[in-house]
Amino acid sequence: MNRNPEELRTLVEGYLAELAFTPELGGLEQALRYPLAAGGKRVRPVLSLAVAEAAGAVAEHCLPAAAAVELVHTFSLVHDDLPAMDDDAERRGRPSAHIAFGDATALLAGDALLAEAFRLALSYPAPMVGRELAQATLGMIGGQFRDVTGDTADLAALHRLKTGALFSAAVGVALWVAEVPEGEQPAWRAFGDELGLLFQAIDDVLDGDGYAAAVGVDEARRLADDAAARAHARLEAIPADTGVLTEIVASLAARTA
Amino acid sequence: MNRNPEELRTLVEGYLAELAFTPELGGLEQALRYPLAAGGKRVRPVLSLAVAEAAGAVAEHCLPAAAAVELVHTFSLVHDDLPAMDDDAERRGRPSAHIAFGDATALLAGDALLAEAFRLALSYPAPMVGRELAQATLGMIGGQFRDVTGDTADLAALHRLKTGALFSAAVGVALWVAEVPEGEQPAWRAFGDELGLLFQAIDDVLDGDGYAAAVGVDEARRLADDAAARAHARLEAIPADTGVLTEIVASLAARTA
Repeated sequence: MNRNPEELRTLVEGYLAELAFTPELGGLEQALRYPLAAGGKRVRPVLSLAVAEAAGAVAEHCLPAAAAVELVHTFSLVHDDLPAMDDDAERRGRPSAHIAFGDATALLAGDALLAEAFRLALSYPAPMVGRELAQATLGMIGGQFRDVTGDTADLAALHRLKTGALFSAAVGVALWVAEVPEGEQPAWRAFGDELGLLFQAIDDVLDGDGYAAAVGVDEARRLADDAAARAHARLEAIPADTGVLTEIVASLAARTA
Repeated sequence: MNRNPEELRTLVEGYLAELAFTPELGGLEQALRYPLAAGGKRVRPVLSLAVAEAAGAVAEHCLPAAAAVELVHTFSLVHDDLPAMDDDAERRGRPSAHIAFGDATALLAGDALLAEAFRLALSYPAPMVGRELAQATLGMIGGQFRDVTGDTADLAALHRLKTGALFSAAVGVALWVAEVPEGEQPAWRAFGDELGLLFQAIDDVLDGDGYAAAVGVDEARRLADDAAARAHARLEAIPADTGVLTEIVASLAARTA
């Protein structure tokens, strides 16, 4: 019996709360824990664990990989909020990391979150989880570069990099942990791509930017619905118990915050 | 016949110049190439290749690992120079990356250099090179945190993290590439530690800070000489052709810039 998204989220929270960081970081550790504890929905690591279970693995084996994906996400938020980038003083209703700890410490904390993510990814005997993470991180950074330089004409390409790359990695790392043969991975990965698009389109509807600003809220909502429909269709074509993933699609399509 | 340091440096320069970055980085690529092309002595990657050859490997097999170490070093310089950290407008006689490209792009370029370093480290079938790199990067960041927060009372501990960790990794990655059994690695690693200390002490003598400021130039010079002597002794105890490494110790001890 696969665990539901809420149970998986509890698993993620417990793992992140007890995560032992590299002792050499010293006092910097609290500046890593602060943005990581801010929570959010843990969409990406929950997705990883759900894919791992659907593909026949024990979710616990996927926890380091799932946490690595969340750490990369958190690293990107900490650096995004810096004065050099978006200069955001708040994140999830609390002072952002550089307000709480200063610019230098927040910069180093972001760097350390990224390096800790790779340390986790490299705890597996094979390099595939780490490779997946490196590729996704580089895609995401490429997307952020397009964003800061105003190269936003091709919104689909921008989102595929900024959001899609890490969603894709959330699925990809779980496939490696579950030892899904490479030939069987494309169907799962196609599902992950649709989920990334769904997540971003809804995000834009809720924030009134991105797709919503470019094509209007109704059209952005239609994009999201289409992506959700394709995600469901992808899942149906996968010969595995994908019920929990179906739940995740439905809840992402229906989210209001 | 093992190649001399100058030949190894040429090998490193050629590899770095032709390094293919992740295409998704798009226009950000030039902001990675700029600080990487600024050169310097390539002490760390040359050390990697020299250790690899001394340990019986083909230097070329070690190039991705050696380049990964240099990319981590370059990432740290780019972030160190940012206004959030040291706010240095010049690096090696040229405008620093954030002066040339702006703060946001330099921040992202540093992030991308770190991720590219892991991509290179993960090109090996085993995860050891990547693990070595993650550990060293985290140690280095811990050292930078001590530095920016003024926790510099224990200068030896600070340097062991800020400089020593990456020197140690330069040796470590080469040992894994050369498949030196773990039981035989301590002697090589002890050599690397002395070399890191030697490098830092001479650096401080040349810059008039760190050890030179704390204990005086003469005493810092004596620290360097002692480290060089111990490095030589370590090499003599290793049953391999370590002639090129002996050359590296001598040239680091004698450097004037």
